[in-house]
Amino acid sequence: MRQKQKIAIIGVGLLGGSLAKALKGRKGILLSGWNHRLSSRRKAARILSVASSFEEAVRNADIVLLCSHSGSIAQSLIQMKPLINDCALVMDVSSVKSEVMKQASRIPGMQRHFVPCHPMAGREKSGALFADAGLYRDKIVFMTPLSGTPAKLLSRARNFWKSIGAKPVVLDAKKHDSHVALTSHLPHLLASCLTEIYGDEQRREPSLRLAVGNGFKDVTRIAAGHPGMWSDIACMNASAIRRFLTRYRLKLAALEKDLGRKNKRRWLAYFGRVRSIREGLDLK
Amino acid sequence: MRQKQKIAIIGVGLLGGSLAKALKGRKGILLSGWNHRLSSRRKAARILSVASSFEEAVRNADIVLLCSHSGSIAQSLIQMKPLINDCALVMDVSSVKSEVMKQASRIPGMQRHFVPCHPMAGREKSGALFADAGLYRDKIVFMTPLSGTPAKLLSRARNFWKSIGAKPVVLDAKKHDSHVALTSHLPHLLASCLTEIYGDEQRREPSLRLAVGNGFKDVTRIAAGHPGMWSDIACMNASAIRRFLTRYRLKLAALEKDLGRKNKRRWLAYFGRVRSIREGLDLK
Repeated sequence: MRQKQKIAIIGVGLLGGSLAKALKGRKGILLSGWNHRLSSRRKAARILSVASSFEEAVRNADIVLLCSHSGSIAQSLIQMKPLINDCALVMDVSSVKSEVMKQASRIPGMQRHFVPCHPMAGREKSGALFADAGLYRDKIVFMTPLSGTPAKLLSRARNFWKSIGAKPVVLDAKKHDSHVALTSHLPHLLASCLTEIYGDEQRREPSLRLAVGNGFKDVTRIAAGHPGMWSDIACMNASAIRRFLTRYRLKLAALEKDLGRKNKRRWLAYFGRVRSIREGLDLK
Repeated sequence: MRQKQKIAIIGVGLLGGSLAKALKGRKGILLSGWNHRLSSRRKAARILSVASSFEEAVRNADIVLLCSHSGSIAQSLIQMKPLINDCALVMDVSSVKSEVMKQASRIPGMQRHFVPCHPMAGREKSGALFADAGLYRDKIVFMTPLSGTPAKLLSRARNFWKSIGAKPVVLDAKKHDSHVALTSHLPHLLASCLTEIYGDEQRREPSLRLAVGNGFKDVTRIAAGHPGMWSDIACMNASAIRRFLTRYRLKLAALEKDLGRKNKRRWLAYFGRVRSIREGLDLK
């Protein structure tokens, strides 16, 4: 009889926990989880069997899913290297790829195992308590293979994501980092900055609270994201984020000037153009 | 037998249509609606009885609800003045108050009728097709009375909003305009600016589309708002919006510098502070 396939999930939070839930109950697999913090391990234990140590979790694993923040991936790769199965597939789900790959490429032989991945799935809520078996369904998962990644390994990674209903797409790591800098990292800074000013102003003007509607909540929702994850991102994808931020600030300065002009026709054209771009995002 | 109370709704879009739906079916009232555009009148006719002209709609009205954009309120007030009932209560729902009040105060005797209002209810979808009887339920409605507004009139306005489940709150008009400049008007510009850059970038990089997740959609959703309404706002509340926009740009410049520092501890503290402010908004 064939032995069970061991899948280790390191970092059983929202993303890791949702993977665990999506995989749970499948025949022929053995799930093993690990969290750095005791309190997180306790939450994880409601979803899957938690190992007694990191080493225990990854030992002889056939698949390792690194679901911790961008800043911790390289260290985990180094630690697991001597313990994992010879043909183990290792994937992460963190949202910065170039820097993670640079670090991974310094670990000898790691390209035989590691396929950097980033699912476009997430919420502002973090932690295993919010895990959801359907989180990855129909979601794009970027895979940014290293130069030496074997085609067979990439294909296994692709099949893994397909098996949980996601849509894997191969993309150049630099391009990936640029894309998410604009669609995710910059928006996080913008929402944070708005939230910060709101906080300052609200202390002086308590009635400001009454003027918060759904629009403001939508715009600032992502600012409630996990500080640890976002500080890793701000440090590890800084240059791509900064490039867009500079562009953004210049556009804002132009809008500031336009406010002085009070030219209704000009604003009509601008908001009309922007609306049609935004409406395009809701179509598939 | 007492005659029916006539309520006229001018501008039967999302806000006006939702008012109509909330009032519909009440005993003792007669609803009459009007839209400037024929196509909007046709949509309105599914909800309430549409008059044959603006004049017809407001003639002998006991309550007039002006649900068109900020830029059109003064003109409507002038037009209706000779036609409405002697003790008619007139309210608008537009999101700029100081400028509207300045214009209204130039119309002799208007303070006996007009109570400027602004419900914190809205969506990025506009038009009567999206009207919802429950739109105002538990929503704050700012009332910014003119200096000469009779207490009795204000009290009638308050009762009106309460009767449809909303929460009326009196606020100074200048303060109101400052509040919504920060919680609604500035966010609209920020979302528009981000959407614009996305549009530019996406033309060059089609794969950017794949990197759009729920976060980006949340942040930019309001950019799909009605261009006519938003261009009125950009022109009529320009100075309050500009004040916050300047502050915002300065904060962004500081964040841009921080990106160069790559100081994780600093980012951790920043994102932690912002998260707790944002989480506070979801508590009541």
